[in-house]
Amino acid sequence: MYSFKNDYSEGAHPRILEKLLKTNLEQTEGYGKDKYCIEAENLIKNKLNNKDVNVHFISGGTQTNLIAISAFLRPYEAAISANTGHIQVNEAGSIEATGHKVIPVNVEDGKLRKEDIVSVLSKYTNEHVVKPKLVYISNSTEIGTIYTKSELEGLNQVCRENNLILFMDGARLGSALACKENDLTFEDISKLTDAFYIGGTKNGALLGEALVICNKDLQEDFRYNLKQKGAMLAKGRLLGIQFTELFKDDLYIEIAKHENDMADILREGIKSLGYDFLVDSPSNQVFPILDNEVIEKLEKSYGFNIWEKVNEERTAIRLVTSFATKEENCLEFIKVLNEITNK
Amino acid sequence: MYSFKNDYSEGAHPRILEKLLKTNLEQTEGYGKDKYCIEAENLIKNKLNNKDVNVHFISGGTQTNLIAISAFLRPYEAAISANTGHIQVNEAGSIEATGHKVIPVNVEDGKLRKEDIVSVLSKYTNEHVVKPKLVYISNSTEIGTIYTKSELEGLNQVCRENNLILFMDGARLGSALACKENDLTFEDISKLTDAFYIGGTKNGALLGEALVICNKDLQEDFRYNLKQKGAMLAKGRLLGIQFTELFKDDLYIEIAKHENDMADILREGIKSLGYDFLVDSPSNQVFPILDNEVIEKLEKSYGFNIWEKVNEERTAIRLVTSFATKEENCLEFIKVLNEITNK
Amino acid sequence: MYSFKNDYSEGAHPRILEKLLKTNLEQTEGYGKDKYCIEAENLIKNKLNNKDVNVHFISGGTQTNLIAISAFLRPYEAAISANTGHIQVNEAGSIEATGHKVIPVNVEDGKLRKEDIVSVLSKYTNEHVVKPKLVYISNSTEIGTIYTKSELEGLNQVCRENNLILFMDGARLGSALACKENDLTFEDISKLTDAFYIGGTKNGALLGEALVICNKDLQEDFRYNLKQKGAMLAKGRLLGIQFTELFKDDLYIEIAKHENDMADILREGIKSLGYDFLVDSPSNQVFPILDNEVIEKLEKSYGFNIWEKVNEERTAIRLVTSFATKEENCLEFIKVLNEITNK
Amino acid sequence: MYSFKNDYSEGAHPRILEKLLKTNLEQTEGYGKDKYCIEAENLIKNKLNNKDVNVHFISGGTQTNLIAISAFLRPYEAAISANTGHIQVNEAGSIEATGHKVIPVNVEDGKLRKEDIVSVLSKYTNEHVVKPKLVYISNSTEIGTIYTKSELEGLNQVCRENNLILFMDGARLGSALACKENDLTFEDISKLTDAFYIGGTKNGALLGEALVICNKDLQEDFRYNLKQKGAMLAKGRLLGIQFTELFKDDLYIEIAKHENDMADILREGIKSLGYDFLVDSPSNQVFPILDNEVIEKLEKSYGFNIWEKVNEERTAIRLVTSFATKEENCLEFIKVLNEITNK
Repeated sequence: MYSFKNDYSEGAHPRILEKLLKTNLEQTEGYGKDKYCIEAENLIKNKLNNKDVNVHFISGGTQTNLIAISAFLRPYEAAISANTGHIQVNEAGSIEATGHKVIPVNVEDGKLRKEDIVSVLSKYTNEHVVKPKLVYISNSTEIGTIYTKSELEGLNQVCRENNLILFMDGARLGSALACKENDLTFEDISKLTDAFYIGGTKNGALLGEALVICNKDLQEDFRYNLKQKGAMLAKGRLLGIQFTELFKDDLYIEIAKHENDMADILREGIKSLGYDFLVDSPSNQVFPILDNEVIEKLEKSYGFNIWEKVNEERTAIRLVTSFATKEENCLEFIKVLNEITNK
Repeated sequence: MYSFKNDYSEGAHPRILEKLLKTNLEQTEGYGKDKYCIEAENLIKNKLNNKDVNVHFISGGTQTNLIAISAFLRPYEAAISANTGHIQVNEAGSIEATGHKVIPVNVEDGKLRKEDIVSVLSKYTNEHVVKPKLVYISNSTEIGTIYTKSELEGLNQVCRENNLILFMDGARLGSALACKENDLTFEDISKLTDAFYIGGTKNGALLGEALVICNKDLQEDFRYNLKQKGAMLAKGRLLGIQFTELFKDDLYIEIAKHENDMADILREGIKSLGYDFLVDSPSNQVFPILDNEVIEKLEKSYGFNIWEKVNEERTAIRLVTSFATKEENCLEFIKVLNEITNK
Repeated sequence: MYSFKNDYSEGAHPRILEKLLKTNLEQTEGYGKDKYCIEAENLIKNKLNNKDVNVHFISGGTQTNLIAISAFLRPYEAAISANTGHIQVNEAGSIEATGHKVIPVNVEDGKLRKEDIVSVLSKYTNEHVVKPKLVYISNSTEIGTIYTKSELEGLNQVCRENNLILFMDGARLGSALACKENDLTFEDISKLTDAFYIGGTKNGALLGEALVICNKDLQEDFRYNLKQKGAMLAKGRLLGIQFTELFKDDLYIEIAKHENDMADILREGIKSLGYDFLVDSPSNQVFPILDNEVIEKLEKSYGFNIWEKVNEERTAIRLVTSFATKEENCLEFIKVLNEITNK
Repeated sequence: MYSFKNDYSEGAHPRILEKLLKTNLEQTEGYGKDKYCIEAENLIKNKLNNKDVNVHFISGGTQTNLIAISAFLRPYEAAISANTGHIQVNEAGSIEATGHKVIPVNVEDGKLRKEDIVSVLSKYTNEHVVKPKLVYISNSTEIGTIYTKSELEGLNQVCRENNLILFMDGARLGSALACKENDLTFEDISKLTDAFYIGGTKNGALLGEALVICNKDLQEDFRYNLKQKGAMLAKGRLLGIQFTELFKDDLYIEIAKHENDMADILREGIKSLGYDFLVDSPSNQVFPILDNEVIEKLEKSYGFNIWEKVNEERTAIRLVTSFATKEENCLEFIKVLNEITNK
């Protein structure tokens, strides 16, 4: 049975495994001080056209979020997140476990806007409540939507005006930047956020996220946080090697583009069969609304996530494409859905 | 320049990389619920001859220590550790960051004994101080020594009598168990400790430790802790695949034995040149005491760690062997040391 | 200018000060082990008709909440609270600072019901989210409403069925129990909750809350938590002396009844002038909805809190009565309000 | 039986109770914003001859230590303390509970010197260990010794040179400053430390410590920390009123001087009977070394703490004097000791 459950169902892009094989017996320094981590940091700085950032390689997204946020905040400061934000609903209280409240904001499309931040600030004004200090956004969001440059500029502005930190979770940043609708560049993001990360795990790597700290005030002593939270791998090279391969040419974006292309096939095919979508997502996550009976039949041939009940008869599911998804997998899915639909 | 700095200077044992290659495009469940993690758990249970344990796969040692210890303790409870213990001196306050004090005990050889625990308990007797609750030991220790069965039984007894948790850091458990002097088995350890881990990173894996929770009272809900601390890898298979390979036959112990054999060559050779050792370590870490001038010359050809100043003229260094260390590397080192010594 | 801002604007009930004076030079043990704390614990056990509880005296409500909740929960467990709950909106992230998420539930009247808990449990079902474990309620609530026996029994039932801890914040428990509408007794509460506290600060004491731990599983080692969080007063007698005075006869409830009687005068008087209330609160907090112009004029003579904007013209304010509020203060307020209203 | 167990066995200095009585029914603002807290802050600023400090009133010493230290440090930073320091041995892991390691330094007399700090810094030099950032000292120390101006200047210098925070626990600051041997003033301390506190509880108050934050960089947003840790009393006036009384004239130092005078009677008397002392302490704590048989007899008439076994036959005890200790209590003690000694 083929699975569209997520973009981490398979191992790594073949080029990454090749590189691991090729470098396997080289001796390197431990703890992220090896030549590959250094090279990967430089490749990323080049891609950002920004030499002033710091880059740290971390195993996974939850770990990156909790280390960055706990490092950036004072004890009484809180993070603002969309109600769908990964730190709010998918990390088992990881941020709170480091001592910080997450302030959720109800939004329709997974995205925070300038106005949302202003509204939160107006309600948190004295020491009987936490102090909102960091704005957490995801791009692409947990429901596949992406930020426009104008939206990100708005957030940047409100953060500067109110001395807030803007942090972007980029677990699926590749897919966001590879969207046809996207008007943001890596460089823009490094200029408009205080920190963000470039997700590897969901973009063809075995594991690994590259945390980019753009704001100089947040860079000092950061490696202490990595060590203390258990994120400093003895064989840090494992992350460095993967990111050198992803960023030595355009592999990172090529993988993302492939994911989006495969998602487009699903999107177009499903739409052509007359189905609606829960959300209009341009990236590698697709949320069609199907009749419950259709879903039941589909589950016999495909793995996917049940996302949200829409009404008594219909439910939204989630389909995700990965570096390894093939065109034939997508076409076959549409064919099966067509058969079920028209039976 | 060849490095004896540590056992994580190279990638992974070739069989592990082969297995990763071979399974790369298989689709599996995420978050450690894949078939490889399940198979690895079963292989380890078989090796322990103990079906009642739980096994969790975690990226690294510091992360394993902090997750296990914070999961096992109530807020006011503390861990007892040798003064050389990894949690006391090498983890940037990771245990304290989860809220718990580490009580260090000064010992000569890196090992805690029954009497050390009794002594600590006699001093911590009311609510103005923390409550010692967990005994943290490492096997092999941070200075290469290993526990005998009798010593571990002593610790087990004092822990049972005082309702303490006995936790063994096994970052280098392979090397300990593969020592000629060792009289402990995997099964013994699963019976005598409440929890321990089987280190992969320093025993031929790319990364990964297998945490074994033996005490049923400590097993409930454990995966919540993994998630909350950022240790649940999306592609958890990466750890499962490696441990299936390490435990499907005797590869794990074979690698450890190789490490020890290589260390033996270094040990014997250095001893034959008339040098003493800081500590009598039978495992894959060797701590010769050399004249400062000798060290200076040696540094031109070899990488190693300066461990401890012994007096004005002499210093102990640390040499570590890995899965990838070759006999010729060791023989060559002895040859170079001989030349420097007798020049 | 007279203030109805809160029930902690004045010092202490005269009998409490007298008792402090009278006992001032007696020598007692420190840290809450003095004879007065012991006596007060016994008096409270008698009042509860329950010898199996433990009682601890703590300076304030936020401190009591954070110590109890952090002591009761494992790291990944969370507290469920009404959206108006003190721990959710008035304690500067104190619960999160101990590592735990607060799950807010939107309710109209400040009270959680059985159904609210069931609904939360249905959404938190795996280790990617926190595990709801403790139900936090306040009686009277932050908006002056009170729990009926039937409602509390419902919560008790859902907690038993789902292995949850039911914890009642009783900062204003006196006022709740002294309401005409109340059908709960101290004894009921000690049987239906796992822990609760009896508020002193808002009921005539200088400071101090009596935390009652009813569930035997939660009693062990509790004093360690007091010490660790800085709540064990050297002169613990200060709390013990006050609670002996409050509970040696019916002073505690008499003070509460006085507060409610004074609030009744305000309520009746305001109602008779034709005003509505934001919430129908029977206890010592009153929430009339007034025209903005009326409020502006009232502020020249009285202190009170602006609570919530109702619409463009009208706003709810909060009036609170204390042990020291006099009948004439209330009658005078109604007179002034009448004059403003009918001018 | 008369107790010399500690300086918190009785209530409060009579003038404090009088002031509480006199002001009891005045209405004031809550949470430390009342006129008495403001007045007390100003009185203290005058006493320090330093207008640039911030003053916060907190219930007790452990609470003050944990709030200040957790507010001042980043997650990976640690506090350096003497091995006898209150935060190291008497606070049930309160600092670790906020996430920070305490680095103990073995010293003979309870005092840290410049050299101790330099020595610690030389050992903590990379991100595998915590980063020492705050120097915690007590004056008078936990064993009754006091800092000279020159010693404090040395600490100030090493802290400035290494960007460390110097924090003084002044639970018994009165007794230190009132010593004949003392050459420090309140003003000196406010200039030489980054923060310190003026202990009330052990100097005649019912409860309360005045935390003085001298370093402007540490002042911002501090009240959030008070609230979050449960230290913001609803009736904050209780602390403000007491400190206005202690600092409106020289009452604070007069009480301390009385404590020291009473301790002098004990010291002189014990010395004249031929006994030695564990430590040469000039303040209100006295540590005579007595034969075990003498102690046994003494315990029939007096309460005191057994401090430390010196050898098989002899033990050091601790005697503490308070605002309420009378000359006759001390003379009588010497008389009884004389009788026991010479029987």
